[in-house]
Amino acid sequence: MDYPILSNIKSPEDIKKLNIGEINALCEEIRGCIINTVSKNGGHLASNLGAVELTVALHRAFNSPEDAIIFDVGHQCYTHKLLTGRFEEFSTIRTENGISGFLKPAESEHDKFITGHSSNSVSAAYGIYKAKKLKGEAGTAVAVIGDGAMTGGMAYEALNNAGSDKGNFIVVLNDNKMSISNNVGALSRALTKMRNKPRYHHFKFALSSFLTKIPLIGKPLNLFIFKIKEVIKSIFYRKNIFSALGFNYLGPVDGHNVKAMESLFKIAESYERPSLIHVITTKGKGYAYAENSPHSYHGVGAFDIEQGADICGKENFSTVAGETLCRLAENNSNICAITAAMAEGTGLQRFAEEYKERFFDVGIAEQHAVTFAAGLAEEGLIPFFAVYSTFLQRGFDQIIHDCAIGGFPVKFLIDRAGIVGEDGETHQGIFDVSYLTCIPNLTVYSPSTYKELEQRITEAAKTDSIVAIRYPRGCESECLTFDETADFSVIKGESKKAIITYGRLFSEASKVKKTVNDVNIIKLNKIYPLSNDLVSAVSEFSEIHFYEETEKSGGIGEHLASILAENGYSGKFIIHAVENKFVQAASVNSSLKANGLDFNSMINSINN
Amino acid sequence: MDYPILSNIKSPEDIKKLNIGEINALCEEIRGCIINTVSKNGGHLASNLGAVELTVALHRAFNSPEDAIIFDVGHQCYTHKLLTGRFEEFSTIRTENGISGFLKPAESEHDKFITGHSSNSVSAAYGIYKAKKLKGEAGTAVAVIGDGAMTGGMAYEALNNAGSDKGNFIVVLNDNKMSISNNVGALSRALTKMRNKPRYHHFKFALSSFLTKIPLIGKPLNLFIFKIKEVIKSIFYRKNIFSALGFNYLGPVDGHNVKAMESLFKIAESYERPSLIHVITTKGKGYAYAENSPHSYHGVGAFDIEQGADICGKENFSTVAGETLCRLAENNSNICAITAAMAEGTGLQRFAEEYKERFFDVGIAEQHAVTFAAGLAEEGLIPFFAVYSTFLQRGFDQIIHDCAIGGFPVKFLIDRAGIVGEDGETHQGIFDVSYLTCIPNLTVYSPSTYKELEQRITEAAKTDSIVAIRYPRGCESECLTFDETADFSVIKGESKKAIITYGRLFSEASKVKKTVNDVNIIKLNKIYPLSNDLVSAVSEFSEIHFYEETEKSGGIGEHLASILAENGYSGKFIIHAVENKFVQAASVNSSLKANGLDFNSMINSINN
Repeated sequence: MDYPILSNIKSPEDIKKLNIGEINALCEEIRGCIINTVSKNGGHLASNLGAVELTVALHRAFNSPEDAIIFDVGHQCYTHKLLTGRFEEFSTIRTENGISGFLKPAESEHDKFITGHSSNSVSAAYGIYKAKKLKGEAGTAVAVIGDGAMTGGMAYEALNNAGSDKGNFIVVLNDNKMSISNNVGALSRALTKMRNKPRYHHFKFALSSFLTKIPLIGKPLNLFIFKIKEVIKSIFYRKNIFSALGFNYLGPVDGHNVKAMESLFKIAESYERPSLIHVITTKGKGYAYAENSPHSYHGVGAFDIEQGADICGKENFSTVAGETLCRLAENNSNICAITAAMAEGTGLQRFAEEYKERFFDVGIAEQHAVTFAAGLAEEGLIPFFAVYSTFLQRGFDQIIHDCAIGGFPVKFLIDRAGIVGEDGETHQGIFDVSYLTCIPNLTVYSPSTYKELEQRITEAAKTDSIVAIRYPRGCESECLTFDETADFSVIKGESKKAIITYGRLFSEASKVKKTVNDVNIIKLNKIYPLSNDLVSAVSEFSEIHFYEETEKSGGIGEHLASILAENGYSGKFIIHAVENKFVQAASVNSSLKANGLDFNSMINSINN
Repeated sequence: MDYPILSNIKSPEDIKKLNIGEINALCEEIRGCIINTVSKNGGHLASNLGAVELTVALHRAFNSPEDAIIFDVGHQCYTHKLLTGRFEEFSTIRTENGISGFLKPAESEHDKFITGHSSNSVSAAYGIYKAKKLKGEAGTAVAVIGDGAMTGGMAYEALNNAGSDKGNFIVVLNDNKMSISNNVGALSRALTKMRNKPRYHHFKFALSSFLTKIPLIGKPLNLFIFKIKEVIKSIFYRKNIFSALGFNYLGPVDGHNVKAMESLFKIAESYERPSLIHVITTKGKGYAYAENSPHSYHGVGAFDIEQGADICGKENFSTVAGETLCRLAENNSNICAITAAMAEGTGLQRFAEEYKERFFDVGIAEQHAVTFAAGLAEEGLIPFFAVYSTFLQRGFDQIIHDCAIGGFPVKFLIDRAGIVGEDGETHQGIFDVSYLTCIPNLTVYSPSTYKELEQRITEAAKTDSIVAIRYPRGCESECLTFDETADFSVIKGESKKAIITYGRLFSEASKVKKTVNDVNIIKLNKIYPLSNDLVSAVSEFSEIHFYEETEKSGGIGEHLASILAENGYSGKFIIHAVENKFVQAASVNSSLKANGLDFNSMINSINN
């Protein structure tokens, strides 16, 4: 494919010179480039296709990097990357050593902030804004946030803080009527009402187009008339949740009309109070498959452009968790399932359809999800909160304070635990072992196979304690036989050397056993608290290699080493884990290798 | 003091029979009892005095425990405790083995949920509500939440979720125009506007009083007329942030008028949609000192009722932190301070007054606070976020995702680290060591003295890395001399035994040294990452006792034990810490003793 306009955009300045015809052509090229690249590398498709014109309008209206533009979650930042000097490298997106799929400050001065987790953009942008003002610098800051991310409490905290301020801080609400799944909750309803108000800005835009063509006075006159109209309109429309939080509400505006958005952004910039611009976009815009099925095309693997992506679900740990829950729910009406806007990702679709009453999608709201689940548990129900490891970090306090102190037996299905691959450093599930094991009264399991996962979920439903079951992204690999019902299994060898591990790495260790038969393999099922039997079982080995795909600090290896030290163990104990660093985007296999956690690394370690 | 009515209230049923004169007398008795008890035991005074009539009205309108009433934060739960069979034990509140100062399920069937941290009540109550409906049980659930707690994102997440539901779920907003300090932010402004609307319910109440006296048809007629009026009124008033979130907004109503509130609660209960009742109360109501200075009387120690509490600040770790920041700010205009509604508690009052531009109170919004600080840091400012250890749990994800991954050098002043005393299990600062040390690129210090704290803050302001400085509640104690600038100090003894510790416990260890002179004391300044020199320095000892007032799992003791194990250390290593449990309310000294962390426990351990 050719990109005659796009390939000449070296910085956002270059798009300011284009005329409307060129802008439209540029947007088409951007769409083509995104579809083409994502079809090869995988990535976030539908959300990015929806934000093409919006991003072009932002970069025309504002001056990045002097004006800081922060894209929430980064699911909508591909156009931004293409317009800020990264067209050449765009084909490397989400690959090892390639550019990131999210905003990344190390990559460009136009990426001011990390965004990968939802709902942080308003806080970050407002911090940057206040710093600029304190330092007396020019420019403003703009947070671009989706309607889904707007359900996160963090966004509300930031709006509440910024809304009482003066000055031209700007929030752009990219409303595509859904988060990753259909958006839920009261805010979503309120937005629907706001969307259905007369599309005032359509009429206005025609006038504006005409006015700006008048030489000299045209532009100021246009701005003046626009402002007057906004004031009149605000008398009728101003009362909504954003105006209640102190924001000047502008919109709704068509998010695929560059000129209309540009005008509104300019107006917002000219105010001496914070503004929220409500932009309506179509998720998946311009690629029929994605427009028709935006959920399925939110994040995709590589696919054939003509045929569309293969979106029928393969069996993986997530689907097994979901299917197991369905099976349990059939015979036990107390089983409930909770998701924070990730029903598909966590395999809960069938549960959502078949057990509607007992399925709760609470929005991108992990804090609430945990405590809501504790409330259900208080009344004797059996709530399973299925959530990605990295996103459960948002509910850390609630696990301690609302579940563990009160002893409310919520069950956590922790998906994407360990290395996650191409989503990179913001999405790695390498902290949950540390942050869960410091909480009293929590039991943590880390299954290696589908069968073990099923076993654990089935058991968890029967206990009245708090249980966390963590499992990796993707599919199971072949493993040695072990006892799924035990706390741990010892697969005996002749030597005094042992490998201890759990979760996905057990399949790597299984391969080692086939090559180095005399090594002992200890496979942990319950990873915390550690069983007393384990301590005596491993004390007989003179050299222990502990493998885990998590941060070393606070990991199970350290817990075990510490117990062994307290028990006077004098053999060699070596922990192989992620050491005090974040793990960059790469394939899972490549990351395991880089951190010394794959089959070959194991072989090398035990042979030295 | 005598409590003729209150002493006869054995359960909420008993207050339903009282006439208006008796209700008023009861409220006065409750006030007297709270003032009297808090003057002896310390506790939350002003907030509880403001919620007396509100709580009486709640327990008259609803049937606890069939109807679950969840008081947010628990700063307002004393009247609830007095009315639910705990009058006799009330004098033991906040003492060891006494009743808790917060809601506590283990204590009473009327305390359905733990509340100690802010803004969780709506989530918990909504969970309980949904469980009741799923199980087909009678009753509703009511969250009672302050205007301060309403600034927490978690409350918004829950409102968004519950507001799209059907059924009579109820939120009572106890609006006393402040959180712990004056409330800040846009919501607070919006509430001020709502408060200033005509006090509709005053007029209505007179009519209602009259109607309910008509036999037979009076009560239904009253309810009917009330409903009609609510509908009419809602046409004019309904557009506010709560109605935008799907709630039927009722109020504002005088929070010291029991009958008026009762009527509104009954109306809310009769609706088939969620309601929010806006109740206006006066913090400190009925005790002149507290009414005039509600901030200072939010939480108090024991005081003389006639003289008022001694609220002039003594020097403590918090004030030293605040004063140090002021000193640095004088010469460095980049220094900023951030609080999440705790300016007084964290010693930032003078900073707030003298450096207004650079002081940010963001509301009860720790998530936003961390990321906002990261935004300031991104622009080159030097933000210090002063926050209690237990509340920073809310910002855990933001420390990882928004500070550490991006490398934005926010400085954390972590107050109330370690055992906190009478606030009990919900407020202990015993998790921060574990949750901070699993995050890459963070340096953690734990000063033992004011001088060391000053040194650390001064150093932190100069580095461009992320630094956490954690210090205990209260005042410094006498310590042996050590080098404040080093990573650690060894205070030599003759024996092969060593005590390693940090923070407040160094003063206990100092006492040990004076008694058992031959023991070696190692005092850590930088507690993480551990210095390589430390490992070699301690390897020479054959018996090491590690003391820390934190959870053992993931603590520094485990980190060190693990390193020693990996280095082949073969001596005795014993960790003394909080072992897999929560720490109940008791004095700090008593808790230290109970967990084997005080002077005497140390002596006993090293002698065995």
